[in-house]
Amino acid sequence: MNNHNIKKPRALTFDVFGTVVDWRTSISREIQELGAKKGFFIDWSAFADEWRAGYAPSMDRVRNGQLPWMTIDSLHLIILRDLLEKYEITSLTEEEIKHLNLAWHRLDPWGDSVEGLTLLKRNFVISTLSNGNIALLVNMAKYGALPWDVILSGELTNHYKPDPEVYLSCSDYLGIPIEEIMMVAAHKNDLRAAKSQGMSTAYVLRPLEHGAITSDDRPEEFIDLIASDFIDLNYKLTTFTDS
Amino acid sequence: MNNHNIKKPRALTFDVFGTVVDWRTSISREIQELGAKKGFFIDWSAFADEWRAGYAPSMDRVRNGQLPWMTIDSLHLIILRDLLEKYEITSLTEEEIKHLNLAWHRLDPWGDSVEGLTLLKRNFVISTLSNGNIALLVNMAKYGALPWDVILSGELTNHYKPDPEVYLSCSDYLGIPIEEIMMVAAHKNDLRAAKSQGMSTAYVLRPLEHGAITSDDRPEEFIDLIASDFIDLNYKLTTFTDS
Repeated sequence: MNNHNIKKPRALTFDVFGTVVDWRTSISREIQELGAKKGFFIDWSAFADEWRAGYAPSMDRVRNGQLPWMTIDSLHLIILRDLLEKYEITSLTEEEIKHLNLAWHRLDPWGDSVEGLTLLKRNFVISTLSNGNIALLVNMAKYGALPWDVILSGELTNHYKPDPEVYLSCSDYLGIPIEEIMMVAAHKNDLRAAKSQGMSTAYVLRPLEHGAITSDDRPEEFIDLIASDFIDLNYKLTTFTDS
Repeated sequence: MNNHNIKKPRALTFDVFGTVVDWRTSISREIQELGAKKGFFIDWSAFADEWRAGYAPSMDRVRNGQLPWMTIDSLHLIILRDLLEKYEITSLTEEEIKHLNLAWHRLDPWGDSVEGLTLLKRNFVISTLSNGNIALLVNMAKYGALPWDVILSGELTNHYKPDPEVYLSCSDYLGIPIEEIMMVAAHKNDLRAAKSQGMSTAYVLRPLEHGAITSDDRPEEFIDLIASDFIDLNYKLTTFTDS
């Protein structure tokens, strides 16, 4: 945490993939289970990593107008079909491909996520602010028992983070000045964009997001608070902020 | 309930004012408390009824294009200012008027609502589908501990029920065919419109919504199921539907 107290936010908006849920372990497991059933063997984690790696470039194609607006479910499916071809996996039915694509709706929360969000919910409005579409986020919340007050998404603006429209929409939908909303994410680019729109920011360390420990815990001028997990975030927000 | 089994829905979308919360008692109490503090005395329930009575005509002015899109919060404030003038209540500060306007964010749930929704949430995706704006519905859920999975609103389409856009948006946002979504409301016009867009429908009796008991429990061809409250709704949906 920086050495200044910040104003207590009224609402927290959370990045989801990587910040709330462990996409890599969950996706690897789903593809591995499918491989065991259908008789193919690949590097499961590499497959998950490549699927995820296709995510930002495909959103960028929407953001710069090369592709019309489409949901993450649709983008995930495009990337998946390319990957299945690359890995020469030809044994899946169309139904199995579509089910596998929805593995992104079935991601396990990090160990502290449910407890931390439950604590935070007592003190703040807690919302998603994800590039995942509403259906994905609702299904994931049911799957992982994530106690959101409300589901906000880039889908509601037909924009993807880090486009300003996504961050600005929170203020309108929540009826709260943007200065009183805090963006929570494990990714600095998300926080930089949120801060530039006037939000306060909390950086949560998720060193296992990419498998081997990677940890960038350096402070930045666009980060108001650094937390080791959501329980620590709740502690710091209720202890070190000014009302 | 009609004498045929219906297909079990995957999601339930709820009308809120009158169906989930008792707006009349809550609004009457707020204006009464304010009157006690500020020294005015009126028929509190009549004031609540008139405020509510202004609701449908003002939404109709948005629906037919006489007014640009604006939220229920904005429409409530327009109606409130007219009413304060009519009742010759001149002692309120601008801050008090704005606080009173947000009384619609602080409505008590009916006695069965929280328990019923908690039961239903185990079996279905449960969502608001209200003309109330997102901020109003989020604040109301925090106030009344309503355990929604997701907050859907006419605000997301810039349309008000019974415009088709509002009902149709549920299917897109939830990623569920509209035939597998059930509209739950205490008002027949809402259910008629939902059914005409392909939803199934549950009519919940709220005989005290308007104070003196008024009860229209007649079946209609556009009603699939009639329930006495949300606990009864959960019982009927888990007992009498086909998977």
